[in-house]
Amino acid sequence: MKLTITLSAAALAWGICTPVMAQQKAAAKETNTQLETRFDQQLSSAHVGATIKELSAKPHHLGSAEGKKVAEAIAGKFKSYGWDARINTYKVLFPTPKTRVLELTAPVKFTATLKEPALKEDATSGQEGQLPTYNAWGADGNVTAPLVYVNYGLPEDYETLERLGIDVKGKIVIARYGRSWRGIKPKVASEHGAIGCIIYSDPKEDGYYEGDVYPKGAFKSEYGVQRGSVMDMVIYPGDPLTPGVGATENAQRLERSQAATILKIPVQPISYHDAQPLLAALEGPVVPAEWRGALPITYHTGPGKATVHLEVAYNWDLVPAYDVVATIKGSQYPDEWVIRGNHHDAWVNGAGDPISGLAAMLEEAKAIGALVKSGYQPKRTLVYCAWDGEEPGLIGSTEWVEDHDKELQQKAVAYINTDGNERGFLGMGGSHALTKLMDGIAKDVTDPQTKVSVYERAKAAAVVNAAPAGRKAALEKKNITLFALGSGSDYSPFFQHLGVPSLNLGFGGEGDGGEYHSIYDSYDQYSRFKDPDFSYGVALAQVAGRAALRLADANVLPFDFTDLYKTISGYVKELTDQADQLRESTVLENRLIKEHSYQLAADPKKSFTAPKAKAEVPYLDFSALQNALVKLDHSSSTLADSMAATTVTAAARQRLNEALYQAEQSLLVSQGLPKRPWFKHSIYAPGFYTGYGVKTLPGIREAIEQRNWKEAQEQIAVVAGAVTTFSAKLDEITGLIK
Amino acid sequence: MKLTITLSAAALAWGICTPVMAQQKAAAKETNTQLETRFDQQLSSAHVGATIKELSAKPHHLGSAEGKKVAEAIAGKFKSYGWDARINTYKVLFPTPKTRVLELTAPVKFTATLKEPALKEDATSGQEGQLPTYNAWGADGNVTAPLVYVNYGLPEDYETLERLGIDVKGKIVIARYGRSWRGIKPKVASEHGAIGCIIYSDPKEDGYYEGDVYPKGAFKSEYGVQRGSVMDMVIYPGDPLTPGVGATENAQRLERSQAATILKIPVQPISYHDAQPLLAALEGPVVPAEWRGALPITYHTGPGKATVHLEVAYNWDLVPAYDVVATIKGSQYPDEWVIRGNHHDAWVNGAGDPISGLAAMLEEAKAIGALVKSGYQPKRTLVYCAWDGEEPGLIGSTEWVEDHDKELQQKAVAYINTDGNERGFLGMGGSHALTKLMDGIAKDVTDPQTKVSVYERAKAAAVVNAAPAGRKAALEKKNITLFALGSGSDYSPFFQHLGVPSLNLGFGGEGDGGEYHSIYDSYDQYSRFKDPDFSYGVALAQVAGRAALRLADANVLPFDFTDLYKTISGYVKELTDQADQLRESTVLENRLIKEHSYQLAADPKKSFTAPKAKAEVPYLDFSALQNALVKLDHSSSTLADSMAATTVTAAARQRLNEALYQAEQSLLVSQGLPKRPWFKHSIYAPGFYTGYGVKTLPGIREAIEQRNWKEAQEQIAVVAGAVTTFSAKLDEITGLIK
Repeated sequence: MKLTITLSAAALAWGICTPVMAQQKAAAKETNTQLETRFDQQLSSAHVGATIKELSAKPHHLGSAEGKKVAEAIAGKFKSYGWDARINTYKVLFPTPKTRVLELTAPVKFTATLKEPALKEDATSGQEGQLPTYNAWGADGNVTAPLVYVNYGLPEDYETLERLGIDVKGKIVIARYGRSWRGIKPKVASEHGAIGCIIYSDPKEDGYYEGDVYPKGAFKSEYGVQRGSVMDMVIYPGDPLTPGVGATENAQRLERSQAATILKIPVQPISYHDAQPLLAALEGPVVPAEWRGALPITYHTGPGKATVHLEVAYNWDLVPAYDVVATIKGSQYPDEWVIRGNHHDAWVNGAGDPISGLAAMLEEAKAIGALVKSGYQPKRTLVYCAWDGEEPGLIGSTEWVEDHDKELQQKAVAYINTDGNERGFLGMGGSHALTKLMDGIAKDVTDPQTKVSVYERAKAAAVVNAAPAGRKAALEKKNITLFALGSGSDYSPFFQHLGVPSLNLGFGGEGDGGEYHSIYDSYDQYSRFKDPDFSYGVALAQVAGRAALRLADANVLPFDFTDLYKTISGYVKELTDQADQLRESTVLENRLIKEHSYQLAADPKKSFTAPKAKAEVPYLDFSALQNALVKLDHSSSTLADSMAATTVTAAARQRLNEALYQAEQSLLVSQGLPKRPWFKHSIYAPGFYTGYGVKTLPGIREAIEQRNWKEAQEQIAVVAGAVTTFSAKLDEITGLIK
Repeated sequence: MKLTITLSAAALAWGICTPVMAQQKAAAKETNTQLETRFDQQLSSAHVGATIKELSAKPHHLGSAEGKKVAEAIAGKFKSYGWDARINTYKVLFPTPKTRVLELTAPVKFTATLKEPALKEDATSGQEGQLPTYNAWGADGNVTAPLVYVNYGLPEDYETLERLGIDVKGKIVIARYGRSWRGIKPKVASEHGAIGCIIYSDPKEDGYYEGDVYPKGAFKSEYGVQRGSVMDMVIYPGDPLTPGVGATENAQRLERSQAATILKIPVQPISYHDAQPLLAALEGPVVPAEWRGALPITYHTGPGKATVHLEVAYNWDLVPAYDVVATIKGSQYPDEWVIRGNHHDAWVNGAGDPISGLAAMLEEAKAIGALVKSGYQPKRTLVYCAWDGEEPGLIGSTEWVEDHDKELQQKAVAYINTDGNERGFLGMGGSHALTKLMDGIAKDVTDPQTKVSVYERAKAAAVVNAAPAGRKAALEKKNITLFALGSGSDYSPFFQHLGVPSLNLGFGGEGDGGEYHSIYDSYDQYSRFKDPDFSYGVALAQVAGRAALRLADANVLPFDFTDLYKTISGYVKELTDQADQLRESTVLENRLIKEHSYQLAADPKKSFTAPKAKAEVPYLDFSALQNALVKLDHSSSTLADSMAATTVTAAARQRLNEALYQAEQSLLVSQGLPKRPWFKHSIYAPGFYTGYGVKTLPGIREAIEQRNWKEAQEQIAVVAGAVTTFSAKLDEITGLIK
């Protein structure tokens, strides 16, 4: 590693007397070229495959003996690669099933199998130790009631039911997977008075409609079931008993009944084999076209004679969660941490989710370890983490983050997350101040299949898949767009709770499959359908590893807040447009209602309840936020210009860098979002009614969507305040570059 | 009828000294109020139901003994209502099946049933005399070949197949019903080298996906089959052996092999029961999402091992077609004919198609007969027609029109068509100069279910179903829009061959069903699902009867050519926009191709052929047409202004009216459309690749769509010429009002 060290020293010398922007560029690109070449040479797709095979060999969910062995194996690997690795253990609540019964009791009797069969084509599918099919965090319950089909189970689906004259109060609902995060479905059902919730995989979204089913093809067979958490994670993720604090041995714990994120009704996921008799038994109106799945039946809403008995009970145990945390200490800035993470727990074997992403991360660790052995030293400390308990609710990451919150807000430069990975196109989400960093990386990494850059390949897909009206703009775009992060993986606590700049990276789009959270997420499935030669495991290691290395070695950290300004500005434009459109559409809708258009257009032989007029939408005063944005425009571009024009001494650089990576924390609001104080980021949050799906400027956006004008106005002031504080922070940073 | 006569005489007197426009208004509205009240009082929904039951009691297709009896029964009814009724007989070619075999021969053996079972819930479903399931005008043939699924079988579907690397040359294709008229599917298949064509009803468009199936509900059961003509009717409709002339006993006939409208490959329609094993046996790529139906299988394109044997042979007989033509002579203008028609032949029993429309027409005839008995005399001659042989290809109407072409171009004021009718919303298409007439009628007739006008009800549906962007405009619209007519019923020969102003009227949208062209289009089905109390039969009689009476009694015929001008002007705008968009999209598409976007976005593990660059779109010179439109704007508004301001003597009125109703003939072009001289209207035609679907300004539009720029430019000149001639005709009419 001599050459790299030499280059690094040269860059250091060079940095002292060059403008900050050039230093950033050097950090982001030129400095690391040769190091990265050496890094790439250490990556082996065969080794990625071997790691996937090894770590997915047995079911290894949170709290299982095999889960502990996987954590220990990972720690062992880190150590063997030359890292300092420890296991941090937390004690967390985790329900596993005791009883699961689902029956149709009328008009005919049918007992759901609730079981995925072993397949001879899938070597691990018949193993001991599999968690049965269930949704964690539904309530214990034993209910019998008429059944109603609620489509995806979203708030607007209940509006449609109201139009059709159907009420779910006292009923059991059946919703299909899709559109929202699964936990939204029972939560909304419960809000509407349902007493139980069944979630099934319709072959339209997940089965034969998509392609040949497993094991002939990759897609979900009739018995496949998607397990998954239904914790009300949009309130807070992590251990339900220890919100805001690490679930250490002696942490103060809530009573289970006090935990706001555990649902109030029983929930059970089922296969389409089990769902078909239930759905076929429904009476009532035929559902609207958008509600129809791909089963060979006529979909009705219910209710009718179809009655369902659902009984579920859980072991509500406290179990250990094993987070593996491995470090290589920084040579110049040991208290600046570049954090990288991927979870290790799986619902069952989890070859794809999470092991494919974990194997890429371990491949990076192996390569970096080799570089260190040959003399390389990162300037900042690298912290590589393998999280436990992500599947039930981002538990391992959240508890570790809550346990280290102060330290992380002081030291964390950025958090780089991955999760399941497969063949296809690079997708990247995260803090928009890191746009240029990731743009550079996407243009430097080569796509294994086409040999163009992963940027060019993702761009081609964006262009081809763009709506005709947006195609020209897509073609003329010269840089990546980071998508905004909602939730669904371990970045949430870093990003939305602490304001640590975060990234979520992965390839996807060509890994056919219906194995998600089933016993068929196996090495056999993965190596046939997801990434047969594991080359995208290497590509992911190249992308995420470069992000870690460039952040670790940058003389001046590559944050560019003009990109963040442009992004927020775009969101504000969306919101003002949305409020205007809602105002116009409400006026028009009320006019239709007044003129009886809905009644006149409805078939008099069918049950139909016309919508009620809604209060008109007032003009909101966005000026505080708009003025804050004018300031941010100025502050961010002044900072960028100063960094381009001014030099900074090596001595001053540490304070500058610290200020750069801590800047995003100024966008947190201390009281958090309405109804969910744990979520503190004013710009990004998972949607209260979408789950994984992001809501940007969530306080304002969700108040508008829920037609809560008072709260919308209050939240405009809150966000304007955060943006103003953030601008002041940027001005302060500009002051450091004198 | 004294009061009416008095009113009529008063109006006549009034007309002499009032502006023409006022005369028109009087004709269109005030004059007839009391007459129309009396007319309405004669209409009986119970009688409509009885007529439907009687005339659909037996299968009565073209050439059958029962078909002859139905024609005779209709003639008898007209006579009993006081009309002069005759049967005009033509001798026409009509194929009926001798042999029908469809088998899957590999990878497994399956023989298609090709049979709709009788149902105890449907009294006529087991009768003798049913035509078996077939598509008339496919070729005799005996072919065995691999099978390929071609989606709807449209030209763009073959482009998609090309992208996927699939060729149909020498194969048998299977297409689903929908999107285009059925005859387009085998025609396009044949153009691409396929040697046989199977057309099936997918449950997505026609079956359980839509609602409960017959006999539980109204929708198509697994064995239901849609019969139907696949004649290449967009070349010319009617008897294939006598294009352009009436198929009288001694008409000169083509050899069958010379008839351009008979297809070159064998065709067979099947049920989804018969289709599923065929589709399930296909290999090759999984089809794109838009290609997937609702069968519980993964849809593949084929080919593969799936091999099909299709054998069909027909009796190619000359059979008699019986057109019933009934008249009540006009008191003032006996040589001005208001023509009304509906076919009487059915594929099987045809309670819905065509008897529901025919029963409404007969109800009008009964009511008018009663008015005549009590003293009313229409000023113009009413000609009520019940056509034979519409189902196989508009045969009875076309032969009668061709047989009387000169007389019709001299005497026909307008042709008012109906066909199957059901509960729901009024839909009206036709000559746009009749917009105001039909607007007035739609506002005068009451919807049986909601008691608002049928205009208000149709408007409510248009508003509610409008895309959000168009909803406000839909709400603020104050008048009807006539849709442009393509083909699919008996107006085509009048309208597109002779230029007789035409209308096509019907209610629909609430008559659930999958009975179309099957043995289940029965009285039992109709009276359960289509219009249980037959009140929409009465509503249709009110609409169509008013159109006939107002046209028959108008002092000055209610043509307003400013509406036609605006409509044509809108079409020209569409075409210039379309050419511009095509130019831009071609440039963009070529750029994507050049930059390899399609290859880079494609999955390298799947077969994919990138599209080839296309020649750029030249700027077309629309100026001749645009200038002709400026002239038409002037001519049509001058005529309208003159009619509003000027008086006309009763003596001059006859020449004026004749000029008004013949004006549309000026829009015919003598050489007809490219590739199809029979279609002479320059503004409206069925699409060469859509069938029933209309193409407005067809010569230009289809040339642009087919990227034939030379022909597009030629057709601009042709249409400009027709519009100029038409303007001159309007100026001539203005000259008559001096």
